[in-house]
Amino acid sequence: MDVLVPLATDEPKTRLAGTLSPSERSAFARAMCADVLEAISGRDHDPQVLATTAVDADAPVTVDDRPLTTAVNAALADAFDGGADAVGVVMADLALATPAAVDRLFETDGDVVLAPGRGAGTNAVVTRHPEFRTDYHGASIRDHREAAHDIGADVTEVDSFRLATDVDEPADLAEVLLHGEGRAREWLVDAGFAVTVADGRAEVTRAN
Amino acid sequence: MDVLVPLATDEPKTRLAGTLSPSERSAFARAMCADVLEAISGRDHDPQVLATTAVDADAPVTVDDRPLTTAVNAALADAFDGGADAVGVVMADLALATPAAVDRLFETDGDVVLAPGRGAGTNAVVTRHPEFRTDYHGASIRDHREAAHDIGADVTEVDSFRLATDVDEPADLAEVLLHGEGRAREWLVDAGFAVTVADGRAEVTRAN
Repeated sequence: MDVLVPLATDEPKTRLAGTLSPSERSAFARAMCADVLEAISGRDHDPQVLATTAVDADAPVTVDDRPLTTAVNAALADAFDGGADAVGVVMADLALATPAAVDRLFETDGDVVLAPGRGAGTNAVVTRHPEFRTDYHGASIRDHREAAHDIGADVTEVDSFRLATDVDEPADLAEVLLHGEGRAREWLVDAGFAVTVADGRAEVTRAN
Repeated sequence: MDVLVPLATDEPKTRLAGTLSPSERSAFARAMCADVLEAISGRDHDPQVLATTAVDADAPVTVDDRPLTTAVNAALADAFDGGADAVGVVMADLALATPAAVDRLFETDGDVVLAPGRGAGTNAVVTRHPEFRTDYHGASIRDHREAAHDIGADVTEVDSFRLATDVDEPADLAEVLLHGEGRAREWLVDAGFAVTVADGRAEVTRAN
């Protein structure tokens, strides 16, 4: 399956600005993207990075500087025009993605398969319906269900913590440290981050 | 399988104190527990509520006012002493739990099966090893992996967004509204809560 992996390369991960420097955020975002690409290609699927500027990656890169929704929808239209039967869209910040989690997404039946993200998001999609289009603005999981319904497409959802965990905020780093299996976790460990316990609660701290 | 469902009845859900009144928090906690019990018993498993005080529930209730870890471990010891081959422990605030999600937990092989919770927690356990004990303090998922390792038990983990989502904080209510299928969601809707979108981001609001 062709799988789009959208990656914002300018000002990535702004909600981590208090935790990581701009160059660190960029490096960490690239490490997460590498993990996602590896999870996808590990099962013989074909990831394609959809980046806002030119970037090095272990997959073909298409540059489209338009907003996320516009760029993804243009790529979906191109893929179906080119004869695709199914197209995946997997966010580049799913640092817990594993080949097994990605397989469950790709192997789930349905015209439209959605992997919800925490906080009303949609972290991954497979569409086998050529008319389905994304809208990542707002409560996207609700909007995607409605959009599929409006075109008469069956929707199924994948129940995955790994796919539901996009890494946006400092607290999310704990998930990467505890459950990540790839480069993003390694990057955090090398940068001095660890999960520590204070007053009985887990928190993320950084060694000096 | 016998499945323990620990429920704190005094001062439940304190982190929702700014959002729900004390009586509302109690009612909402009971609705979530009812959903969890239904998800478990829907597949012919036998839930048993382990409550800090007497409470009405659609399952047998054992009262144990000791701290969570102590009470759960005493119940595990009792169950294995009584001849159980396997015992489950499922938190009462997993408002997204469905029979399918619970089935995946119960049907996963392993001496110890863990369902991670967001924020380093452990939201559900199945132990087939009579010596495994819980410790819900701190980064419990890490501690549970180590505890299983120390007794030579194989650990497997269940990748489930539904089981990873315990409902503690106001933002978690969005998950219940968008993904819940039972009484907890209904309770929130009846109480006037909805997911709305402001500045492109989803948030939970309450009608007056």
